[in-house]
Amino acid sequence: QSSLTLFGVVDVGVSHYSAKSDFYNNTASFVLPPAIAPGGVTKSQTALSNSNVSNSRLGFRGTEDLGGGLAAGFWLEAGTTPDNGATAISSFNRRSTVSLSGPFGELRMGRDFTPTFWNDSVFSPFSTIGVGANVVSSVGTSLQVVRGPGSPVAASDNYLRTSNGIGYFLPPNLGGVYGQLQYALHENASQSNVPGSPSRKGRYFGGRLGYAAGPLDVALAYGESTAADTTGVNAIGLPTGVNLEEKIKTINLGASYDLGFMKIFGEVSQVTDRARSTAPVPVLGSATLRDSDKYKGGLVGATVPVGPGLIKAAYSRVKFDNDLGPLATPLTPRRDASVNKLAIGYEYNLSKRTALYATAARIRIKDGQNNPAIVGAVTGGVTYLSTGAGTSGFAPRRSTGYDFGIRHAF
Amino acid sequence: QSSLTLFGVVDVGVSHYSAKSDFYNNTASFVLPPAIAPGGVTKSQTALSNSNVSNSRLGFRGTEDLGGGLAAGFWLEAGTTPDNGATAISSFNRRSTVSLSGPFGELRMGRDFTPTFWNDSVFSPFSTIGVGANVVSSVGTSLQVVRGPGSPVAASDNYLRTSNGIGYFLPPNLGGVYGQLQYALHENASQSNVPGSPSRKGRYFGGRLGYAAGPLDVALAYGESTAADTTGVNAIGLPTGVNLEEKIKTINLGASYDLGFMKIFGEVSQVTDRARSTAPVPVLGSATLRDSDKYKGGLVGATVPVGPGLIKAAYSRVKFDNDLGPLATPLTPRRDASVNKLAIGYEYNLSKRTALYATAARIRIKDGQNNPAIVGAVTGGVTYLSTGAGTSGFAPRRSTGYDFGIRHAF
Amino acid sequence: QSSLTLFGVVDVGVSHYSAKSDFYNNTASFVLPPAIAPGGVTKSQTALSNSNVSNSRLGFRGTEDLGGGLAAGFWLEAGTTPDNGATAISSFNRRSTVSLSGPFGELRMGRDFTPTFWNDSVFSPFSTIGVGANVVSSVGTSLQVVRGPGSPVAASDNYLRTSNGIGYFLPPNLGGVYGQLQYALHENASQSNVPGSPSRKGRYFGGRLGYAAGPLDVALAYGESTAADTTGVNAIGLPTGVNLEEKIKTINLGASYDLGFMKIFGEVSQVTDRARSTAPVPVLGSATLRDSDKYKGGLVGATVPVGPGLIKAAYSRVKFDNDLGPLATPLTPRRDASVNKLAIGYEYNLSKRTALYATAARIRIKDGQNNPAIVGAVTGGVTYLSTGAGTSGFAPRRSTGYDFGIRHAF
Repeated sequence: QSSLTLFGVVDVGVSHYSAKSDFYNNTASFVLPPAIAPGGVTKSQTALSNSNVSNSRLGFRGTEDLGGGLAAGFWLEAGTTPDNGATAISSFNRRSTVSLSGPFGELRMGRDFTPTFWNDSVFSPFSTIGVGANVVSSVGTSLQVVRGPGSPVAASDNYLRTSNGIGYFLPPNLGGVYGQLQYALHENASQSNVPGSPSRKGRYFGGRLGYAAGPLDVALAYGESTAADTTGVNAIGLPTGVNLEEKIKTINLGASYDLGFMKIFGEVSQVTDRARSTAPVPVLGSATLRDSDKYKGGLVGATVPVGPGLIKAAYSRVKFDNDLGPLATPLTPRRDASVNKLAIGYEYNLSKRTALYATAARIRIKDGQNNPAIVGAVTGGVTYLSTGAGTSGFAPRRSTGYDFGIRHAF
Repeated sequence: QSSLTLFGVVDVGVSHYSAKSDFYNNTASFVLPPAIAPGGVTKSQTALSNSNVSNSRLGFRGTEDLGGGLAAGFWLEAGTTPDNGATAISSFNRRSTVSLSGPFGELRMGRDFTPTFWNDSVFSPFSTIGVGANVVSSVGTSLQVVRGPGSPVAASDNYLRTSNGIGYFLPPNLGGVYGQLQYALHENASQSNVPGSPSRKGRYFGGRLGYAAGPLDVALAYGESTAADTTGVNAIGLPTGVNLEEKIKTINLGASYDLGFMKIFGEVSQVTDRARSTAPVPVLGSATLRDSDKYKGGLVGATVPVGPGLIKAAYSRVKFDNDLGPLATPLTPRRDASVNKLAIGYEYNLSKRTALYATAARIRIKDGQNNPAIVGAVTGGVTYLSTGAGTSGFAPRRSTGYDFGIRHAF
Repeated sequence: QSSLTLFGVVDVGVSHYSAKSDFYNNTASFVLPPAIAPGGVTKSQTALSNSNVSNSRLGFRGTEDLGGGLAAGFWLEAGTTPDNGATAISSFNRRSTVSLSGPFGELRMGRDFTPTFWNDSVFSPFSTIGVGANVVSSVGTSLQVVRGPGSPVAASDNYLRTSNGIGYFLPPNLGGVYGQLQYALHENASQSNVPGSPSRKGRYFGGRLGYAAGPLDVALAYGESTAADTTGVNAIGLPTGVNLEEKIKTINLGASYDLGFMKIFGEVSQVTDRARSTAPVPVLGSATLRDSDKYKGGLVGATVPVGPGLIKAAYSRVKFDNDLGPLATPLTPRRDASVNKLAIGYEYNLSKRTALYATAARIRIKDGQNNPAIVGAVTGGVTYLSTGAGTSGFAPRRSTGYDFGIRHAF
């Protein structure tokens, strides 16, 4: 019991969210917007919100000195929703690990954050939460919800965290160099008479290498998550040759530099959603179709300490490059889209543990009809009206959000 | 971590519940009860019960002194069911708040008890739990389950507690005067092309003002909960004029007076379930129908300390006034009902934290067929057989209950 | 708060499981196995596992000295799954009790382990978890899942634990004699016009008596769980005479003896699944059919301390005796089956609280087609392919399992 710590955060505020969709028309002919909404459709909500500047949570952690430089430790942390009390400690969804550490570094098993997530979070003044969240993270989360492997715990798994993971961390005494590797088992069953089993859907591996010394912190991360891996089987159990493999590959580089009167942040990120489907073709044998969509993102930001307060500002952006496939010609219409966000905020620290905060953010989306489910990031609460499947209808266009609240850590 | 407190209660007992329904006949003609149950139908159950004199719970709370008379605090409390272990800390359904307090009082956000609930609880010797529970509270809970706004956490929300609430409490140094205000956001989304949005369903506001000094404690509370708020919309999105608004308005006054050898309790309560439905009428334009059912309740009770023990007794009652509507004539049959409860109990304190207890209670219901779902209060465990929809069949009539157990706080 | 203790275990490892089914043919004629799996079908899985040598958990417990030798106490303990964080403290499914203890012993109410479970657990070197788990327990759990009463908490309830239980424990000062009684209420409702109500389904009672002194520990336990108790009722509510009662009766005897350089373990167990169905028969009045299947189990095992390590080995076995009924003749084919398991393991203690471990186990099943759901025990993760309903198809045959991991208690 010596080193057992109970810890947590309660962050609750009042927020206002709005999401406006505009009419678009990608058909060759003229189309009128519906008479009931000629100027677009805006959804909005005022809500008691949580986790605007720090994730509300409750956790248990501890370490044990085993002698000889060895230590054992555990970390069990649940995300909570204090605005309505609905989520308490039903799962340790934030982190659930046991560790053995020593001069060699740390070996960690269980559910943990991915290496690729950290750069989206630590090099963003607003981290990945609240109305000011790094939009690279918003898109990454949506991509995993829409295209990702799913998991027993959360549909967005393998972007932010992995379950069933084995991690290794470099020891802390390497002159500012830090790093980690992570491998998450897919845990799918193989069956001797089922071709292509086990599916590798749900597998993740990745790593991160960084350097932090004095005012500088910089880190590079790479990770691959298998979103789909299916092998077609016919009625008598033989392979049909119809196979699909989809992987989400993330690479990002982030840095921060503390000038004293100001700290600056930057990140560049590229997420590739690569699908490869194979089908038998008469005469040719089989054909493989490749599709490689890209999400190119970045962030620049700064924080300025002012007495017990902190001013924060960030601009983040994601550009969607739609791979039109091998049959595209220069005349094929583009199907790209982009989303960018500007956020400013202020935190006033009443103590080390308690702060009042205010944040405002605005999102603008270009050609949202081309990928509404993923680039249609909102500031929170409400979703865009999205209709017409890219042809003609309402597409995500603008979102604004405001958070006012209190964050208390214990 | 300085002031973090882990606290809880485990209250488990053996209980017996029974609920008897009698045959009734509101038709003009003679109807025989079914041969299989000529003398009525009794359901009964013996169960390991929990939360008979104190709600079983587990919570985490803490405060931080911020200097200058200011303090921050949090309170996360989960209701538990120790008889079967099925409910632990999956939600902080009892209370989940963060507070900032100072000379001005306390500002509190999150999920909390309503101001109107407190009088039902603190001015009842058996509070609102166990077989002896204040029947005003039993009816209030049923009313919210049957007619209330629902919530993500509990169907009975906005009677006992609200989620998404902002509360203000008077400071404690006002010479015995205490008070609170509470506003709970409905959090419904508005949409620019949807008439009548946002619905205000789920909104609550209320307040309580009291005075406690020496042997006297008295408090008045008022609250309104919006149970329904719908605006009819036709196929092309235009308003139809068919609208419904339903509000549950609660006013109650409670008091206790400590005579030393005995403490006496009293409460009066009126809950109005007011519905207003509007429909377009040819020629007239539109017509609004109002329906205003009332639940008039009250309690008298006493506790008598006897050595380390406490004898408790209470009589509580609710009368249902069914609003027959504007078309009713003096010849229209009444559709009222009433429920009353007598409860006696004994608690023997083994220590400040631990007590043994025994409680017995009897409920009698008059004309239960007129409102079986709401006035059909039971002592626990089993429900009344209720058939015939007010015409002819079985109606709630009598219920008895016994609790024997142990309450241990930590 | 004086004696409140927060405690737990995090046990995570990497495991490999496989389960092989062979083709069988109980028809009189020749049947070919399917071309796609002539040599049987093997399922296998590699997974991050939890609770291989100690159940991962998190709990809160405390006691209060009431004076005069009396004490009150509580114990709330949740099973967790640290490999994926999915299960935290949503229920106190492992134990949830309040106790009053004194010179008379201990009275305990709530959810607790059954007396009959303890011998399967404490007299097995691998307890009832991980790949080396006592196969008597694996079969007991499956029997309750397939044939048992179910419960709000777990389908396997009343084998391992009961909810709604009242327990009595002998005081600890009886010269090495220890013992307990447990009664779990079925909590079913009776209804005066429903014949045969309440059903006693879900009721459990049992006891355990043991002696522990010096190197010897020996205990005998007996328990009965009512798995089904139904009374047929016709359309007008009268009894039809078609009744069913099914009880699972467990008796077991376990012992361990510590030789210093080695500790030896042994258990014998018999579980009887006894069904009695009654149906009206023209002329005869009514006939009662009895069916009494038996599961005869046993274990021999040993542990050998080697420095800070512990070598463990166990062989456990269950023989299924299928009661063919009163109409069986000597020519009726047997429908028995059996399962046996050999397990070896090693634990290396880094400290009292932390250990590394490795376990390997192999299961062999004879005539698994006769009772695949219950005797088809696996080492974990995957299930056997089981087809043909005892006639011709694939039947459980062999399973192997390996665990490598770390156990950390706090």
